[in-house]
Amino acid sequence: MKFESPEKLHEECGVLGFYNNDGFDTARMLYYGMFALQHRGQESCGIVTNDDGKLYHRKEKGLVGEVFDGAALNGLKGAIGVAHVRYATEGDLRENAQPIVSRYCKGSITLAHNGNIINAGALREELETRGAIFQSTNDTEVIMHLIAIARTRTHSVEDAVAEVMPQIEGAYSMVLMSPRKLLGIRDPKGFRPLCIGKIKNSYIFASESAALDTMRAEFVRDVEPGEVVLIDENGITSFKKFCGKKPSLCLFEYIYFARPDSVIDGVSVYRTRVETGRILARTYPADADVVIGVPDSGLHFAQGFAAESGIPYGDGLVRNRYSGRTLIKQTQRERELAVNIKLNALRASVEGRRIVMVDDSIVRGTTMANLIRLLKENGAREVHIRLGSPPFLWPCYFGTDIPSKKDLIAVKYPVDEIRKKVGADSLHYMRLEDLQKIGVRSDFGYCDACFSGNYPG
Amino acid sequence: MKFESPEKLHEECGVLGFYNNDGFDTARMLYYGMFALQHRGQESCGIVTNDDGKLYHRKEKGLVGEVFDGAALNGLKGAIGVAHVRYATEGDLRENAQPIVSRYCKGSITLAHNGNIINAGALREELETRGAIFQSTNDTEVIMHLIAIARTRTHSVEDAVAEVMPQIEGAYSMVLMSPRKLLGIRDPKGFRPLCIGKIKNSYIFASESAALDTMRAEFVRDVEPGEVVLIDENGITSFKKFCGKKPSLCLFEYIYFARPDSVIDGVSVYRTRVETGRILARTYPADADVVIGVPDSGLHFAQGFAAESGIPYGDGLVRNRYSGRTLIKQTQRERELAVNIKLNALRASVEGRRIVMVDDSIVRGTTMANLIRLLKENGAREVHIRLGSPPFLWPCYFGTDIPSKKDLIAVKYPVDEIRKKVGADSLHYMRLEDLQKIGVRSDFGYCDACFSGNYPG
Amino acid sequence: MKFESPEKLHEECGVLGFYNNDGFDTARMLYYGMFALQHRGQESCGIVTNDDGKLYHRKEKGLVGEVFDGAALNGLKGAIGVAHVRYATEGDLRENAQPIVSRYCKGSITLAHNGNIINAGALREELETRGAIFQSTNDTEVIMHLIAIARTRTHSVEDAVAEVMPQIEGAYSMVLMSPRKLLGIRDPKGFRPLCIGKIKNSYIFASESAALDTMRAEFVRDVEPGEVVLIDENGITSFKKFCGKKPSLCLFEYIYFARPDSVIDGVSVYRTRVETGRILARTYPADADVVIGVPDSGLHFAQGFAAESGIPYGDGLVRNRYSGRTLIKQTQRERELAVNIKLNALRASVEGRRIVMVDDSIVRGTTMANLIRLLKENGAREVHIRLGSPPFLWPCYFGTDIPSKKDLIAVKYPVDEIRKKVGADSLHYMRLEDLQKIGVRSDFGYCDACFSGNYPG
Amino acid sequence: MKFESPEKLHEECGVLGFYNNDGFDTARMLYYGMFALQHRGQESCGIVTNDDGKLYHRKEKGLVGEVFDGAALNGLKGAIGVAHVRYATEGDLRENAQPIVSRYCKGSITLAHNGNIINAGALREELETRGAIFQSTNDTEVIMHLIAIARTRTHSVEDAVAEVMPQIEGAYSMVLMSPRKLLGIRDPKGFRPLCIGKIKNSYIFASESAALDTMRAEFVRDVEPGEVVLIDENGITSFKKFCGKKPSLCLFEYIYFARPDSVIDGVSVYRTRVETGRILARTYPADADVVIGVPDSGLHFAQGFAAESGIPYGDGLVRNRYSGRTLIKQTQRERELAVNIKLNALRASVEGRRIVMVDDSIVRGTTMANLIRLLKENGAREVHIRLGSPPFLWPCYFGTDIPSKKDLIAVKYPVDEIRKKVGADSLHYMRLEDLQKIGVRSDFGYCDACFSGNYPG
Repeated sequence: MKFESPEKLHEECGVLGFYNNDGFDTARMLYYGMFALQHRGQESCGIVTNDDGKLYHRKEKGLVGEVFDGAALNGLKGAIGVAHVRYATEGDLRENAQPIVSRYCKGSITLAHNGNIINAGALREELETRGAIFQSTNDTEVIMHLIAIARTRTHSVEDAVAEVMPQIEGAYSMVLMSPRKLLGIRDPKGFRPLCIGKIKNSYIFASESAALDTMRAEFVRDVEPGEVVLIDENGITSFKKFCGKKPSLCLFEYIYFARPDSVIDGVSVYRTRVETGRILARTYPADADVVIGVPDSGLHFAQGFAAESGIPYGDGLVRNRYSGRTLIKQTQRERELAVNIKLNALRASVEGRRIVMVDDSIVRGTTMANLIRLLKENGAREVHIRLGSPPFLWPCYFGTDIPSKKDLIAVKYPVDEIRKKVGADSLHYMRLEDLQKIGVRSDFGYCDACFSGNYPG
Repeated sequence: MKFESPEKLHEECGVLGFYNNDGFDTARMLYYGMFALQHRGQESCGIVTNDDGKLYHRKEKGLVGEVFDGAALNGLKGAIGVAHVRYATEGDLRENAQPIVSRYCKGSITLAHNGNIINAGALREELETRGAIFQSTNDTEVIMHLIAIARTRTHSVEDAVAEVMPQIEGAYSMVLMSPRKLLGIRDPKGFRPLCIGKIKNSYIFASESAALDTMRAEFVRDVEPGEVVLIDENGITSFKKFCGKKPSLCLFEYIYFARPDSVIDGVSVYRTRVETGRILARTYPADADVVIGVPDSGLHFAQGFAAESGIPYGDGLVRNRYSGRTLIKQTQRERELAVNIKLNALRASVEGRRIVMVDDSIVRGTTMANLIRLLKENGAREVHIRLGSPPFLWPCYFGTDIPSKKDLIAVKYPVDEIRKKVGADSLHYMRLEDLQKIGVRSDFGYCDACFSGNYPG
Repeated sequence: MKFESPEKLHEECGVLGFYNNDGFDTARMLYYGMFALQHRGQESCGIVTNDDGKLYHRKEKGLVGEVFDGAALNGLKGAIGVAHVRYATEGDLRENAQPIVSRYCKGSITLAHNGNIINAGALREELETRGAIFQSTNDTEVIMHLIAIARTRTHSVEDAVAEVMPQIEGAYSMVLMSPRKLLGIRDPKGFRPLCIGKIKNSYIFASESAALDTMRAEFVRDVEPGEVVLIDENGITSFKKFCGKKPSLCLFEYIYFARPDSVIDGVSVYRTRVETGRILARTYPADADVVIGVPDSGLHFAQGFAAESGIPYGDGLVRNRYSGRTLIKQTQRERELAVNIKLNALRASVEGRRIVMVDDSIVRGTTMANLIRLLKENGAREVHIRLGSPPFLWPCYFGTDIPSKKDLIAVKYPVDEIRKKVGADSLHYMRLEDLQKIGVRSDFGYCDACFSGNYPG
Repeated sequence: MKFESPEKLHEECGVLGFYNNDGFDTARMLYYGMFALQHRGQESCGIVTNDDGKLYHRKEKGLVGEVFDGAALNGLKGAIGVAHVRYATEGDLRENAQPIVSRYCKGSITLAHNGNIINAGALREELETRGAIFQSTNDTEVIMHLIAIARTRTHSVEDAVAEVMPQIEGAYSMVLMSPRKLLGIRDPKGFRPLCIGKIKNSYIFASESAALDTMRAEFVRDVEPGEVVLIDENGITSFKKFCGKKPSLCLFEYIYFARPDSVIDGVSVYRTRVETGRILARTYPADADVVIGVPDSGLHFAQGFAAESGIPYGDGLVRNRYSGRTLIKQTQRERELAVNIKLNALRASVEGRRIVMVDDSIVRGTTMANLIRLLKENGAREVHIRLGSPPFLWPCYFGTDIPSKKDLIAVKYPVDEIRKKVGADSLHYMRLEDLQKIGVRSDFGYCDACFSGNYPG
């Protein structure tokens, strides 16, 4: 069920909310938006709609196009809705699928969450000591409990959220639906993106701006780190009580997670990647005949490298669009074949040539070694590797699923040793100081803890 | 998805628990037992097993034979397990499927419940006022919350249960599994049945004794009304703190719900039905050529009537074993055809004859009218109806799904009017005073509120 | 996927045809009729409809209620249709599912067939020698080839059928649909039943008359052995060129295959069974307290035995209506449990009593032994077995799936040895000479080859 | 179920055969190869394996990754196998799924076919006149009949094929499996590709060489137009009786159908596309800031154009990898949204720029108009269209599914009118005389009838 290579890092989820003032088909709007966010999670997905307090929901394992058909969408009525796509680890409970719906003292509450709560374990324990029960192992259910408790002594759901935010530490971008309100909430450090869109008089919350394009909505602005944005019958209201801290947006959103056609906190993901490629070309030039990228994540870095270096850009590897669900393979031979199903070398492009191959990063190193071997088997004379990010050295506590240190090649070996292990003729990582300069806003802060070990305080 | 006629009353669920001390295959034992309880609920079913604290579960809509295959059963590991078959009304939430599993301060707790809690709404409201959240609309989740709260101040799960029992009013037979214990619990009035079985050194809780036969286990005894029975590594322990009230076992368990091969609180269901038929034959004799029953629920009443009256017993209607899933029919003609799919008249048995037809009860009267019409179309000269129970006149608050008063034919019309409406040549109900005498133990109390309006105090 | 006990014999299939002159929903009419024939085959089923020459079809593995839903039926348009339910042996090809559709020189032809062609192998070989190709291993495809070849030199499909009938030997009742005609065809010996029904101005062919009841149609008459009945725009036409041979209707249709509510060639199946029970009571009386039948096939024999002997009729075994799809069991213990899932003893009926248990037949003897053991475990003092048919001794070449001689208990042991092996206190078979007298028409012939070894010449 | 845009042309199918001399897992080898050919057909797929004459098969609607799981592959035993992926038009019969298996005088024969037989209708009629029956509407079944008939008078299946080839006209590349042989057959004009691969001592036939890479096999050579290649226990044998005509390989295989990493008849598909882009840049230069391609088919043309012109190559459109199964959309708005799900503009790349956008061809023109509008909405200053093929003007009789003339934009309008209709600032087609020069072998002939109207004689 995992479509991305295990070589790649993963993030937990994409969220969407829609507050329909114009008679759109709420479920279909969310459905189209989910397609645009599918890259953020392929394990399960769900939509919950709200027809004047009555809820309709469907959430299942599978891709958006598998889980929802016309009949399913027709059954999801109402003018407010929340949707979620989920990345999940093996053995994950079905109960963990999102959005999560609960009934509580004020009717129902629905939550779709992207992020990771650092103190979730402690909060959970404390709640359990008071007699709480949990049906999932999600951080989201912990937040739900806290809001329900806060709601017993506050006048509105937004007040309850305001009471809960100081209690939870970590990364969260979330969309919350009560019987008559839709809230977009982003943690004070803004680790994960969340933006606001508008179509006619209707409002949208989405993890990435590309979802707005797909819904043919216009981008309004990002939700600020620490901000709570409320949509209800009175329109849009902003609460900025927790704004003002120095943000720590995850740098890896630019490098790998987000779609190239998204703009996050004012910065184009595509432009960042092309610029990174240009910097790599200036910092670590190579004498070569062609620049190729590893599909799909390395292509834009490679295009930047080519434009800057003047070396022609070309394709050297062909991705099979249909290889999604290859069987899990048990023998070494089957594993080798499986690599070949996903990517094949373009001999006509590669043979007899000196190649620069750019990718976003190296995690374990095995896929990179396979690709270099494949290129050389197809006649490549030299293969020079350039990487769009610094080496991964540290764990992430904010929602990125990084393997344990013992599996990180950069923890175990110096750069030249890595070069030898993967079989490259040269290999260079993007320098952290360069990465901090490109594209990103000077007035903003970024989290680079996985490269630097400097965790946001 | 409803296999029984809507004419018939329904009860909510059957429960099972297994504490395996002998290396049996826990999931398969529960699976076989569930088949024997399938008549108590065909909407959804589930098994949760417990492998030294680690839980495995599967619950889905559908019959036992559809939900579980070999792979599903192989995935359910562990020596303790709980199972449930569920009857449900239209629009029921998927979250309501049972057993329900929660994580709480002492690990996990799993609950399978048969019954109806009268004060569930009030308890729920009170819990919500304190900040509780609910993911289903089940009474079971309310009980779960109460146990979790009680558990924060008690030394054991059985102590927590003892603290909760006085708080809940109504009907409940349930099986509870904690990481190392299995509990069978029956409400102080004993509305719903629950019994204990044993196979080698392993223990079983089951809604009906027929499940024990299917598992080839021996019947030990019924759980007493108000009793909590604990199975753990120390064997079997009984807590009778809430025993001693006059019981109110649901009479309709004998009349319709339970399997004929079950023995409940010391009384054979089959024998009760045959004896009822005999009493009907003495009280309301008929001059007829053959006694037939409405399959399957009326057959044993009819056998008793035939044996007592000396009129030969025969089949007059043939039931189609494969008619379970007929499409919902939209036109009047399709509805008529659907009746014919399920039951067909045996013209060779019926033609030219005076017939006594016995059934357990009449609810709305429409099916009875159809059957009499079918018999007459096939040449029956007379059709005399005898019913194994008194008229339904009152609602049930203890778990039986009785239609609203406006749909109960006995509320709307006197007996002779009913006879005319269904087209019978004579029609008689079992008298309540007779029903109270037959089969059932003189030292026991029964709930006959649906007939008498006398609700157990 | 086999729902019947492997103890029982099986026949291959039930057929239906509908020629709609009244604006009925053709597919739904066939669907309702198929439910009534489901007992003749549970492996696969199919409907083909014909909308002015354009065909719509659906055939799949599974029961009627599983294969067809509303959408599937809505997709089957047209005023003529053919349907089929199929019994199949392990490893059967999906291509063998029926009805079979072919395109040929005159458009399309659709065939649904019940029976067995003795010379199919030879015909197939001859066709292959001439260059024919086959996509299934069905006899039906052989017939299809012969009709297509005959059609090249005849003026109508009924002429082609007339040319083919002398070429094929064996048992066949079939329904054939051409672009504008519907034909019902029965082999000259009439081994398998086929009858004609009418509803308003529309015509039906069906394997059994019970299907007509389910469709609320009236029975017109049986198709005669050797007759070809044509329905087209000119109404109904009969061709009797091959009629007049002494028929050989399969006796086992009365004993076990057919529904009790069917009337075949003028004789009621139910009445035959009751009468058989009466003869058994006179021929082999027993001193007993209760007469029980093995559900469902033995019940009517038992009712006859009880009525004749004056011993009360009662239920001694309870059948589980939901046990259809029990998992295939691998261990001895699982096999024992599986028996208990399907049938349980009614201790209250059995304990301390002397029992006469009647069944239709004994094939291998293992199920009978299990049932007698079950009754004795539940306290039966004596168990006397009476069987509605003579011993099986010979193979069937006309469509009944009888195990090989080495598995037939009656081939291996004399009656008294069988009695000992199954653990009965007495055991008697129906005598062939008695069977030949009851119910059945004196002017008709029957095939009793499986009992007598006298194969129809 | 159609994943490709209806704007694009389609071809019918990809074929594979495997003759296993080394103990490989035959079904898994075919499975991996099918992934590499999935672009040639996404409607249905199938594998038939042959275990010493006993056949195992599975064919279903759906993608390879959906139809086959581990259990399905494990069930496909044997050392010889044939596989097929199928493109199909609406309303296609399930019986048309391939490979087709028939039993005939010499056991079984299995056929997987890519192409279109021009005289299939006439052959079919002739066969029907002789009494043949057909269960599909496939050309393949016609070929099967002819081979079966020829086989009755020839000494081997290869002799039968030799007898049939002169009877059939049109395009066919096919793999045929008899109980002990595997044949690769290509029509005398070689319209469709077919090549031979080898891994250890085992042989492969495949529609494209990329399938060999995926199976990690080596490319041996193309099957020659008119050649029959036989693999059996004696190794590989070639029959060239029908070779030697001037070939007519479909030019559109290079332009669009085939994978870029395939080499067909000695010419790299990728190199052909890059070279075409270079010619376009020389013939129709443009003053622009960036060259983009329409994903995925236009990218390599664009890379060639960029390399030749010196204008930087970049991405201007982002393809959503997960958009395969978007619901069919009913309203105009939904259709617009559906376009946006599949492709989104990269504003950061497009805004304020003059763009050259290259694609392989224009069929109806609606998608091109949408894309240009999307680019302009995202700020593109100019959009210059260059197309890798000449205008489509004529129908194809050799297996390419070209819309009728009334839907072909190039039939209806002159080039400048097309430019205006799609909203381009300039628009140029590849010239046919240039196309005939690039890449392709001078000693070979190509079919360009869809551009020129010159059909191969």
